[in-house]
Amino acid sequence: MAGKRLRLPLVFTRSCVAELKEQLGVCSRSVFGVEPSQMSFLFFLMYAAAAGGLLALLESSPGCAQEFKIKGGTQQLSECLAQRVGWKNVRLGSAVTAIWQDAEWARVMTTDDTFLCRAVIVTCAPHLAAKIQYQPALPSMREFLTQNMPVGHMMKFILTYQTAFWKEKGFSGEIVAGSSTDCPFCVTFDATSPRGNPALVGFISGQQATLWSTREAGERRAAVLSSLVKYLGPEAASCIHYEEKDWAKEEFSGGCPVSVMAPGLLTFYHPSLRKPCGRIHWAGTETATLWCGYMSGAVQAGQRAALEVLAEVSHVVLTPEEQESLIQGQTLHRPPKPTALSALLKRLSRKSVLIPALTIGAALLLVRKRDVLVKIQTYVGAF
Amino acid sequence: MAGKRLRLPLVFTRSCVAELKEQLGVCSRSVFGVEPSQMSFLFFLMYAAAAGGLLALLESSPGCAQEFKIKGGTQQLSECLAQRVGWKNVRLGSAVTAIWQDAEWARVMTTDDTFLCRAVIVTCAPHLAAKIQYQPALPSMREFLTQNMPVGHMMKFILTYQTAFWKEKGFSGEIVAGSSTDCPFCVTFDATSPRGNPALVGFISGQQATLWSTREAGERRAAVLSSLVKYLGPEAASCIHYEEKDWAKEEFSGGCPVSVMAPGLLTFYHPSLRKPCGRIHWAGTETATLWCGYMSGAVQAGQRAALEVLAEVSHVVLTPEEQESLIQGQTLHRPPKPTALSALLKRLSRKSVLIPALTIGAALLLVRKRDVLVKIQTYVGAF
Repeated sequence: MAGKRLRLPLVFTRSCVAELKEQLGVCSRSVFGVEPSQMSFLFFLMYAAAAGGLLALLESSPGCAQEFKIKGGTQQLSECLAQRVGWKNVRLGSAVTAIWQDAEWARVMTTDDTFLCRAVIVTCAPHLAAKIQYQPALPSMREFLTQNMPVGHMMKFILTYQTAFWKEKGFSGEIVAGSSTDCPFCVTFDATSPRGNPALVGFISGQQATLWSTREAGERRAAVLSSLVKYLGPEAASCIHYEEKDWAKEEFSGGCPVSVMAPGLLTFYHPSLRKPCGRIHWAGTETATLWCGYMSGAVQAGQRAALEVLAEVSHVVLTPEEQESLIQGQTLHRPPKPTALSALLKRLSRKSVLIPALTIGAALLLVRKRDVLVKIQTYVGAF
Repeated sequence: MAGKRLRLPLVFTRSCVAELKEQLGVCSRSVFGVEPSQMSFLFFLMYAAAAGGLLALLESSPGCAQEFKIKGGTQQLSECLAQRVGWKNVRLGSAVTAIWQDAEWARVMTTDDTFLCRAVIVTCAPHLAAKIQYQPALPSMREFLTQNMPVGHMMKFILTYQTAFWKEKGFSGEIVAGSSTDCPFCVTFDATSPRGNPALVGFISGQQATLWSTREAGERRAAVLSSLVKYLGPEAASCIHYEEKDWAKEEFSGGCPVSVMAPGLLTFYHPSLRKPCGRIHWAGTETATLWCGYMSGAVQAGQRAALEVLAEVSHVVLTPEEQESLIQGQTLHRPPKPTALSALLKRLSRKSVLIPALTIGAALLLVRKRDVLVKIQTYVGAF
């Protein structure tokens, strides 16, 4: 392909551009909580590659991002971890305000306390880590990184019903909606519990979240219900409970579900994402190389940061068996099954142009900038 | 033009795209310290409009951004202001760490002190304002704004010589260089003082700043001198002094010359740029509507914030004469003279495609998205 351009029939490009833009919007809102214009396309490709492909991000079938739910809620993960390390070693309500370092120690300060540490692992999202005062100041490369990694904006709502009427009607409960002024949400899923408590869960995301988050809760509820009625029928109006959450309004979240990279970032500043700054090591799902942005990524990043600290502080080196076991645990365990594609295409109905269009979009990028592929491989394989 | 597309001859688009990209790069590096890919093009247009046009940003002729120097340095502005308000009312070395608000007061905290205020005007750049702890937390719209307004990266160097040899050779001393691995700087100017001390001033900017800031000072100096020799002759090597500054390494600057808006920001979050958050009012040149990013903009923004506070705290309303005087002071005083264009074209030599290409680029954007023009007008006219 050297020196040649990939040419597409004009009729294809004309008819597909508008549809592709719409699909990319749905995709970036559902996965990242941002509009496509706000995010580096190279980051989008890296993020998908870190999950084993775009399908894996969108699907709830085996091996995909939405495969598992945790019975009783994911908060149990933190609670179980706290039990293992001992609740007495966990401080709640003690936000870190400053981290000072010298030749001997790192001093971690909260409003009330100071902790002396040999090493510090910061796991919060880059935009929150940027709020901590560092002395000495962090390298400017790291500062530019945090200035260019905004978090998405996504609101979640859960509607509880007497019966899962959508299932009785033959609907899955999954609705994928494009950007419009009428319908606030971009996606909904069936959330019926194993015991059969019928519920729908949905997300208001990106530009829609920005617009709707400033309105009254009642107005938002009414708009969600009215759109659901349009898609699922009049029974949707009679929910028995409506619950919603806007993480952007939580001081120590500031948004969700994940930090994205702004255009131009991955090729400039990404080396600072995982590079320790003195005694400070960086973890958190944003720093993962597999399932970046997900819980699996958070675990991988935590293991990597822990190894860095062990090697530095205690000069601990893993045995070959331990290394092997770690690598095994960090491998993408199952690729999405072939049936996933057909299921997606079926569900997306007229939106089935998504996959080929994205593939062509990526191909075009790769043909025009062949070094991009090398960069993605380097980035994903960096750990 | 409704419903029609502006069509350009294919030969024009083919031959100009590469040149246009190069010119946009030079322009965005010189003015903003970032690569074009890192910045919203709508913001670029807004910023140019706020200065009365693109020429006004690039020129040093009357009415343009580079028209004036202040004899003795611009630090005198701060010193004169401090004298007027009284040095005893100025605290140096007391960075604000937190601002708490309640129904009665705002509490502004530094490491050592707490100040009770009726109103607070924050004038630092958005990425620095984001480091202050706010209680209650700022609205999420404001948080998203600060996450999406990174500051540029620009290093400045000043070379002093025995004689202004470039002038003797008939050169102006102004060099505009495209992105390359050899030449670190993007632009240099003659900086000969009124007393005749010969000097050249230059800037390493954007991606180049990122690459060169991590290297040794000696290596940077050698690369700058070697490039100057290429452009101005062997005399460039024998400078008597080399001075440089990287604001990205200053904790309370974090970069320069100005914060830019990431793609997608102006249409989503810009209302939060100037909107007070309780007792906190926002000033600083980033919030200006005329000469945004420059000292004039800082003055305009300061006046606007002061008026907000006066109206709220003291219920002071300006007389019609005072209003008129303020508006007069905030008008773009002189448009660039017609000779400026010819001077620019002459200086840019083969780079003369910049102006028509930018005009066409903007025209294409406006024809395809006609609401953009309305948005720019609304944004610039918002004050």
